[in-house]
Amino acid sequence: MLQTISWNGHAARLLDQTRLPTETVYVDITDEKQMWDAIRRLVIRGAPAIGVAAAFGAYLGIRRVEGERAELLGRLNDVCDYLATSRPTAVNLFWALDRMKRVATEAASGSAIKRRLLVEATAMLEEDTRVCRAIGEHGAALLADVCAGEDRIDVLTHCNAGGLATVQYGTALAPIYVGAERGLKFHVYADETRPLLQGSRITAYELKENGIPVTVICDGMAATVMSQGKVRAVIVGTDRVAANGDVANKIGTHGVAIIARHFGIPFFVASPTSTIDLSLATGDLIPIEERAGSEVSNGFGKRTAPEDVDIYNPAFDVTPSELVTAIITENGVARGPYGESLRAMCRPTGVQ
Amino acid sequence: MLQTISWNGHAARLLDQTRLPTETVYVDITDEKQMWDAIRRLVIRGAPAIGVAAAFGAYLGIRRVEGERAELLGRLNDVCDYLATSRPTAVNLFWALDRMKRVATEAASGSAIKRRLLVEATAMLEEDTRVCRAIGEHGAALLADVCAGEDRIDVLTHCNAGGLATVQYGTALAPIYVGAERGLKFHVYADETRPLLQGSRITAYELKENGIPVTVICDGMAATVMSQGKVRAVIVGTDRVAANGDVANKIGTHGVAIIARHFGIPFFVASPTSTIDLSLATGDLIPIEERAGSEVSNGFGKRTAPEDVDIYNPAFDVTPSELVTAIITENGVARGPYGESLRAMCRPTGVQ
Repeated sequence: MLQTISWNGHAARLLDQTRLPTETVYVDITDEKQMWDAIRRLVIRGAPAIGVAAAFGAYLGIRRVEGERAELLGRLNDVCDYLATSRPTAVNLFWALDRMKRVATEAASGSAIKRRLLVEATAMLEEDTRVCRAIGEHGAALLADVCAGEDRIDVLTHCNAGGLATVQYGTALAPIYVGAERGLKFHVYADETRPLLQGSRITAYELKENGIPVTVICDGMAATVMSQGKVRAVIVGTDRVAANGDVANKIGTHGVAIIARHFGIPFFVASPTSTIDLSLATGDLIPIEERAGSEVSNGFGKRTAPEDVDIYNPAFDVTPSELVTAIITENGVARGPYGESLRAMCRPTGVQ
Repeated sequence: MLQTISWNGHAARLLDQTRLPTETVYVDITDEKQMWDAIRRLVIRGAPAIGVAAAFGAYLGIRRVEGERAELLGRLNDVCDYLATSRPTAVNLFWALDRMKRVATEAASGSAIKRRLLVEATAMLEEDTRVCRAIGEHGAALLADVCAGEDRIDVLTHCNAGGLATVQYGTALAPIYVGAERGLKFHVYADETRPLLQGSRITAYELKENGIPVTVICDGMAATVMSQGKVRAVIVGTDRVAANGDVANKIGTHGVAIIARHFGIPFFVASPTSTIDLSLATGDLIPIEERAGSEVSNGFGKRTAPEDVDIYNPAFDVTPSELVTAIITENGVARGPYGESLRAMCRPTGVQ
């Protein structure tokens, strides 16, 4: 499988996802500024992967600082504040940085802080793989159940919540990879996901590399394939889940959820518990990143809208919990009402 | 206003819409093969404009044929059969070609046929403007009514059913142009409309040229702007309406209609009676054009999906009549149940 992010002993190596699917290029990130830029430009993207990247970014930001414990902790705070400005919506970014700051305070000296931060970032990298694998187990069972008796499970997904949005396996695609290992047959409709085409560029790429049949459609075709009875379930990832089960995810997800509900198709969200933000009561409180209009008008090296026209480019939307059939976490499957079920999923267990 | 199609005395002059918004280039079409290619490649597009273009194509196909009446009629049949293969969904293509064949049979000689066909094509060009203007009158009154008491009427549209989809005014945008002349204030959200971006390339272009405020959004953002209360009505054009009110239109329209219904926003379709096909009982019978996958994967000079991945690219979808709030024709506004109301709209009146 492709390696989204790895540590090579002196740098964090990222697969540059802005260049997929035509080029497979890795970049070595050696300081926090490069990491901020890589997260901002979506060289690395996907909530879980952003969390791990930010953790390495925090380490990279202090590893060359000579000083005592207090000096290191002060510098780490600044580095974390800086990295936190790279993208606002994915909660994993803040979760990972908080965790790095917490372990740093447990270290007794400046050099111990450096060692602890590298160990912690590496642990998060490995942990992410275990968490995604567990989501895959729960999700595969759920999909097999929903599609019991069918030869092939036809799923629609939006954006990319696959291996390339995490360290490995992915969240939304993990049930497909794990299910396929066990002999289930899948076919995936991948919404191309404008404006940045993570569906056609990244989801189609990784499914094809991993031998899962995939058909790319434009976002506006989701209603057509659902109306034709070609989709048995929708499964997507998420950048932040509020305490009531409202789900922030890539722009376009809300519409897919409404259309799925219209056709009576279950709408599943795959989410590590690290993406569940119990501190926010509802999805209205989730900050939604708005990105440059040029992503819409100049996305392909050629201008596709008139000069100076107004463009609205929110990067995410919030799907209300009532449209969400279930949320698949590493600790099991939560169903509505989500207030209680999500809290239960987030209680400490053995998985992490 | 821009001239979508005109007759310059020896050629049909088309604004090449494949090159918008960056270049405003006209091409002169002098024979039926060039016209077939122009319709196929979407140099000219939009159901009403395709009808007028096909009418000129029929004339261009016989104007240099020397022969008697029977020979001309035989040749005209072949030319019309050929032009009919250019695009399958828009019924105006077949409507216009049938009309050309009908008037030809009324002429007494070969040279009379040529004269009659040029007169008829030119008449259709002028008629289209009158029809669109009448749609604009009815639609402006309808929108003013729906949005009574508001300072500004915020409308969402999909694809392009504006002046550039007709000879002038358009269908879906005609109520906006006519309403603006009367002092109504509008703002339009234009879905960019993948894969060929008629919304961002063409709708945004013509609205801007005509001084109507417009905001381009990706197709996946329609649910967001509707959920935020920013849209008071959806209005779209159509390529064919079945007798029961099912509406074929650009791919993505069905999803927009489902989302509008979810949020209780009226969904209007603007349709000349020439686009209503009473011979088809329901939308299931409308042939849906499927176009090359390369329109999705290579639309902007750069590959945006992996090589050899499956792509599904239907160019149209069918919105069931139960999602359609009203159909605005040149003869008035039809409401469901459409079986009776559409037949009434199609009865001969003074407008044409």
